Amino acid sequence: MQCSTMQQQKLAGRREAKAAAQKACAGVRVAGASARVPVSTVRQATSSVRAASRATSVKVQATATVEKATAPAGSLSSNGAGTRVMIIGGDGYCGWATALHLSARGYEVCIVDNLCRRQFDLQLGLDTLTPIATIHDRVRRWGEVSGKHISLQIGDICDWEFLSQAFTSFKPNHVVHFGEQRSAPYSMIDRQKAVFTQHNNVIGTINVLFAIKELQPDCHMVKLGTMGEYGTPNIDIEEGYITINHNGRTDTLPYPKQGNSFYHLSKIHDSTNMLFTCKAWKIAATDLNQGVVYGVRTDETMADPLLLNRYDYDGIFGTALNRFVVQAAVGHPLTVYGKGGQTRGFLDIRDTVRCIQLAIDNPAPKGEMRVYNQFTEQFSVNQLAEIVEREGKKLGLNVEVTKVPNPRVELEEHYYNAKCTKLRDLGLQPHLLADSMIDSLLEFAVTYKDRVRHELIKPAVDWRKTGVKVNTMGAAVAR
Amino acid sequence: MQCSTMQQQKLAGRREAKAAAQKACAGVRVAGASARVPVSTVRQATSSVRAASRATSVKVQATATVEKATAPAGSLSSNGAGTRVMIIGGDGYCGWATALHLSARGYEVCIVDNLCRRQFDLQLGLDTLTPIATIHDRVRRWGEVSGKHISLQIGDICDWEFLSQAFTSFKPNHVVHFGEQRSAPYSMIDRQKAVFTQHNNVIGTINVLFAIKELQPDCHMVKLGTMGEYGTPNIDIEEGYITINHNGRTDTLPYPKQGNSFYHLSKIHDSTNMLFTCKAWKIAATDLNQGVVYGVRTDETMADPLLLNRYDYDGIFGTALNRFVVQAAVGHPLTVYGKGGQTRGFLDIRDTVRCIQLAIDNPAPKGEMRVYNQFTEQFSVNQLAEIVEREGKKLGLNVEVTKVPNPRVELEEHYYNAKCTKLRDLGLQPHLLADSMIDSLLEFAVTYKDRVRHELIKPAVDWRKTGVKVNTMGAAVAR
Repeated sequence: MQCSTMQQQKLAGRREAKAAAQKACAGVRVAGASARVPVSTVRQATSSVRAASRATSVKVQATATVEKATAPAGSLSSNGAGTRVMIIGGDGYCGWATALHLSARGYEVCIVDNLCRRQFDLQLGLDTLTPIATIHDRVRRWGEVSGKHISLQIGDICDWEFLSQAFTSFKPNHVVHFGEQRSAPYSMIDRQKAVFTQHNNVIGTINVLFAIKELQPDCHMVKLGTMGEYGTPNIDIEEGYITINHNGRTDTLPYPKQGNSFYHLSKIHDSTNMLFTCKAWKIAATDLNQGVVYGVRTDETMADPLLLNRYDYDGIFGTALNRFVVQAAVGHPLTVYGKGGQTRGFLDIRDTVRCIQLAIDNPAPKGEMRVYNQFTEQFSVNQLAEIVEREGKKLGLNVEVTKVPNPRVELEEHYYNAKCTKLRDLGLQPHLLADSMIDSLLEFAVTYKDRVRHELIKPAVDWRKTGVKVNTMGAAVAR
Repeated sequence: MQCSTMQQQKLAGRREAKAAAQKACAGVRVAGASARVPVSTVRQATSSVRAASRATSVKVQATATVEKATAPAGSLSSNGAGTRVMIIGGDGYCGWATALHLSARGYEVCIVDNLCRRQFDLQLGLDTLTPIATIHDRVRRWGEVSGKHISLQIGDICDWEFLSQAFTSFKPNHVVHFGEQRSAPYSMIDRQKAVFTQHNNVIGTINVLFAIKELQPDCHMVKLGTMGEYGTPNIDIEEGYITINHNGRTDTLPYPKQGNSFYHLSKIHDSTNMLFTCKAWKIAATDLNQGVVYGVRTDETMADPLLLNRYDYDGIFGTALNRFVVQAAVGHPLTVYGKGGQTRGFLDIRDTVRCIQLAIDNPAPKGEMRVYNQFTEQFSVNQLAEIVEREGKKLGLNVEVTKVPNPRVELEEHYYNAKCTKLRDLGLQPHLLADSMIDSLLEFAVTYKDRVRHELIKPAVDWRKTGVKVNTMGAAVAR
């Protein structure tokens, strides 16, 4: 591992960053923010600290790290120096953490984002558990804390004029493509959002492929897929391809895909398109079929309140474990959909950022589409609920588990055995969902529990009722 | 077979149609068209007859059928009575032939088309070998000849307001979806056309699925896919699904797909989306993975010059066999791409229309996506060239075969063994590409050879050069 834990290097890292950041003001405490930090962001950060201070019913060891502006531990590692990485969707949950992780390690980072994730919150009346700064303030503050510059291009990759100019000006060696609508329930709200999801994701990816071919042919594409592309087959899930013996002959073919929402389907389409362009245009690509990401802390995003990552717990953007943790923190029963036997791959967001770095440091050769399954452990929904219930009780929380009708159409009891060895072979050392993880994540949720809006927790989108009428959208809007 | 050959029933059919068509003027000869046929369409039809009359260098037995307005043989069959079939893309090559085939057999037909196929010809400077009437004149003339009414809705299925109104007003029992951009080379001209193809095809199909779910939930969807979805795997190609034994377990999964153009990929995306909606929404669908269609004559489209189908021979919309036949007719060397070992499934357009009828008459149950491979024989490109060369010589044509650099990226020598038994099990009696077929098709091409524009024959789109620049479009435009 290139960076040791924050606990070990926090002070040293802060000291080093101070020296390195020529025009920055590192080590600023939020309560007494320097004049370089805009008033509005101070107000936002301060309110988050206030929220934290109200969370007095349980012990909150970890919040000390939130209250101090700390340079990240790995910020002086420079093995990424000279490597230009464009991160599309760099304002999102995984994208922001990845941008800072790479910037801290010396990669030259350019964030490209159309900010549609924030627009979805406005549209549906949702909000992240954590108070997050604007992308402009985030990037500015990162420069102050770390001395590292992240360039920023606000625009839509479906707009070719914008994307081609972003490519021409930044000239990426790698493009990490997080820039897709990433919620299955969002894609199932109504026809317009199903169409938006597939158009936005598929056309955006086609544009990136054309940008590489036309403008930067040696650029390596790192694309975020999803484990959900595979569905729940009754055979082992391999990493991207499967060798099939059939009627006495053999071939290695793309693993058969079965998506369970217009979102998951859009990622299948992307993979299918990418494979073709790798063959026809000799593009180099790595397709990362990621599992369900949990957690919120990475060394860099915890280094300053203005760098804090988003944390979604609502019924549309909140993923299973993150949602359960918030439910436990506020005394809401954990809502298991259906029988709860649905099994998926999971990973800590600290492993997400490491996996991206590994994909960049070990690029596919031209003409090849590598596929890695990006998760570390698999759990059923019932297992997750049991873990959160057990750990919650250790913190003195009264955690109940309740089964609610499954709003999705999916198998609730099934075989599931997915391979995930390739990224470990490259050096990934997983953060496992040990009790301590849950404990730490639970504490984080408790810190912000006064910001939780209970009305957002309900499952808001029913797969069977997806329609074209205004009232299917109405059901998804928080009231 | 519900209709015997035109040769056998032509006179009888015309007599019957006269009696049946209450408001029509059947049996009209083009040379003396009745007052019901607009002057402009007479002019068009007459010019086609003139073209035919100039083709005097070879014997042209079949042209007699072009010169006479004849009611179709099967027009009085009524086993489709009361069945409402919407044909999206009903002005296209397969769509028009299918619309008339079904209308002749008593199905109530509504053609939905945005006429983009004609727009592509305008855009690229292409033209069909055969002179075709406007869709309005086609439908009007069909009413006169057969006494059958086809309703017409001109609009774009990507426009939900239009599609939903078309569904609400026609209330289809089956929707046959030919309404996609169907040329692989067109999809590879440039970025804009790649994006257009995937947007148009994928979003259009999503809209049809939503229209069924919301407005006509018992409507059966018959969707045209392509054999090209499978690519050229080194194992047998099954019909849609494959049973895989892997690590001691077994499952039947969607057959792995590998498209070789943005067009083929769009059809894969459609199939993947449809399978999901069949499961989630209990939609009934039949996905027809069609091979390369050849030929132009069906009983109905040959019944009157104004009903004549289109026939594409250009480098963008012309498919292998149809293009070879025209090349042979005009003394142009047959252009085999690369080594010519590329093997595909083929079928006569008379079998296309029968397959659609079989799919309608044997609908999938709700919740199931049936997949049929819709072709009758498989040939390599070299085999097709040999057949056309041999048959051309019988007609006194000097046919040469030349190999040109392959503009596509594809295997030129490969294993290919695709199954096609399910439609035969339902009763399909294939028209095989026997010598007589080639002979007849060659004669047809010779009839219209004065309309052939040699500059359209060249391969106009190179897969490796697909770009975003104006000159990649420029290369595809006829000069």
